[in-house]
Amino acid sequence: MDDRMKKQLDFALEIDREKNVFRQTHLSGHGRRENDAEHAWHMAVMAYLLREYANENVDIAKVMIMSLIHDIVEIDAGDTYAYDAEGLKTQKAREDAAKERIFSLLPEDQRREMTALFDEFETCRTPESRFAHAMDNLQPLILNSSNGGGDWKEHGVSAEQVYARQSKTRLGSEKLFEVSDEIIRENIRKGNLPA
Amino acid sequence: MDDRMKKQLDFALEIDREKNVFRQTHLSGHGRRENDAEHAWHMAVMAYLLREYANENVDIAKVMIMSLIHDIVEIDAGDTYAYDAEGLKTQKAREDAAKERIFSLLPEDQRREMTALFDEFETCRTPESRFAHAMDNLQPLILNSSNGGGDWKEHGVSAEQVYARQSKTRLGSEKLFEVSDEIIRENIRKGNLPA
Repeated sequence: MDDRMKKQLDFALEIDREKNVFRQTHLSGHGRRENDAEHAWHMAVMAYLLREYANENVDIAKVMIMSLIHDIVEIDAGDTYAYDAEGLKTQKAREDAAKERIFSLLPEDQRREMTALFDEFETCRTPESRFAHAMDNLQPLILNSSNGGGDWKEHGVSAEQVYARQSKTRLGSEKLFEVSDEIIRENIRKGNLPA
Repeated sequence: MDDRMKKQLDFALEIDREKNVFRQTHLSGHGRRENDAEHAWHMAVMAYLLREYANENVDIAKVMIMSLIHDIVEIDAGDTYAYDAEGLKTQKAREDAAKERIFSLLPEDQRREMTALFDEFETCRTPESRFAHAMDNLQPLILNSSNGGGDWKEHGVSAEQVYARQSKTRLGSEKLFEVSDEIIRENIRKGNLPA
C-alpha cells in the first residue's frame, strides 16, 4: 500500500487505544466506568438526534467528527476529571504534547484538518463546537442522573460546580440547558447533589 | 420537559446499553474483547478519514450516523459472529424484534428516520451503506491483524471465509478492498490464517 494509506491505517490502529482510557462517569444500571471511545460514540449519536435544539444552524457532520475525536489526546494525557482542580492545571500542556504526537501520524493535510477540528472544539467559539460541548456535558449528566448521582457523591461534587460546567451548554443550546437545569434540580431535590 | 424531548432522552439513555454488548474481536495489544459502541465509534472515525477512497461520492454525515447506529439492535439481539452459521440463521428475526422495540422509544419522525438508516445499511444498495460496510469489515481486520490473527485462530476461521466477508468491501471501495486483500495475504503468509 502507498505511504498515505499506510499513515491513515497506522492512525486508525493507534486510536484503538482510546478504548482503554477510562472516565469517572459510570455506565447506566450502576455499571463499570465508561471509556473515552464509548463517551464519544454516545455524544455523536446524541448530537445527531438532538440537532434540532442547537441555538444556531450546525453542520452536523462537523459536530459528529469533532465529538468523535475530541478526547483522542487522552490516549497519552489521560482523562482529567471535570472537577479535578489540580489535574486541570497541567491538562493543557499534557494534551498539547499528545495532540502533536498523535495527529502527526496522519498525512500532513489530515494532520492539519484534525488538529483544526480539535482546536475548534477546545476554543468553543463556533456553532458546531458549542453544540458539541453541550453534548459533552449532557451525556454524562443523563448517565449520572440515572445512577442516582453516584459519580457526584463519589467525588463530593456540589451543585455549584455542576452548574459552572453546564454553563457552556447554554452557548450551544438554550433548550438543552433548560433540560439540564431541570435534571440538576431534580437531583438536588432527591439529595443526590448538595445544593 | 415536553414529550418529544423526554422520548429523545429516554432513547439516549437506552442505547447506553450497547456498551455492554461484546464482540469476538479483541482490542489491539492483545486486549479484552471490543464492545459494539467502541466498534461503531472506530468505524465512524475511519469512515471520515478514509472517505476519499469511496467508489462513489458519499454524504459523510449519513455514513457516520449509519455506522454509529448499525449495531443498536444487538442490545436485545446480542452480537452474532460473522462466521457463526447457526447464529446467522436466527439473526434477522432477533434483530427485527429489537429494531421495533428500540427505535419505537423515539418520536415517530425519528423512529422512521433511524429505522430507514438501519435498513439502508442492512440492504447495502446505496453508496453510503456500501462504504459503511467497508468500514464494518476493515475495522476488525486491522485489529485482528495487529494481534497476529488471534480472533481467526480462536474460531478456526479460514481465508476463504474471510474473503467471502470482505467481498462487500469491494462494493464500497475498490481501493480498500485491495488493501484488505494485501492484509489478508500477509496473514496467510505468516500462518495466522489457513489458506
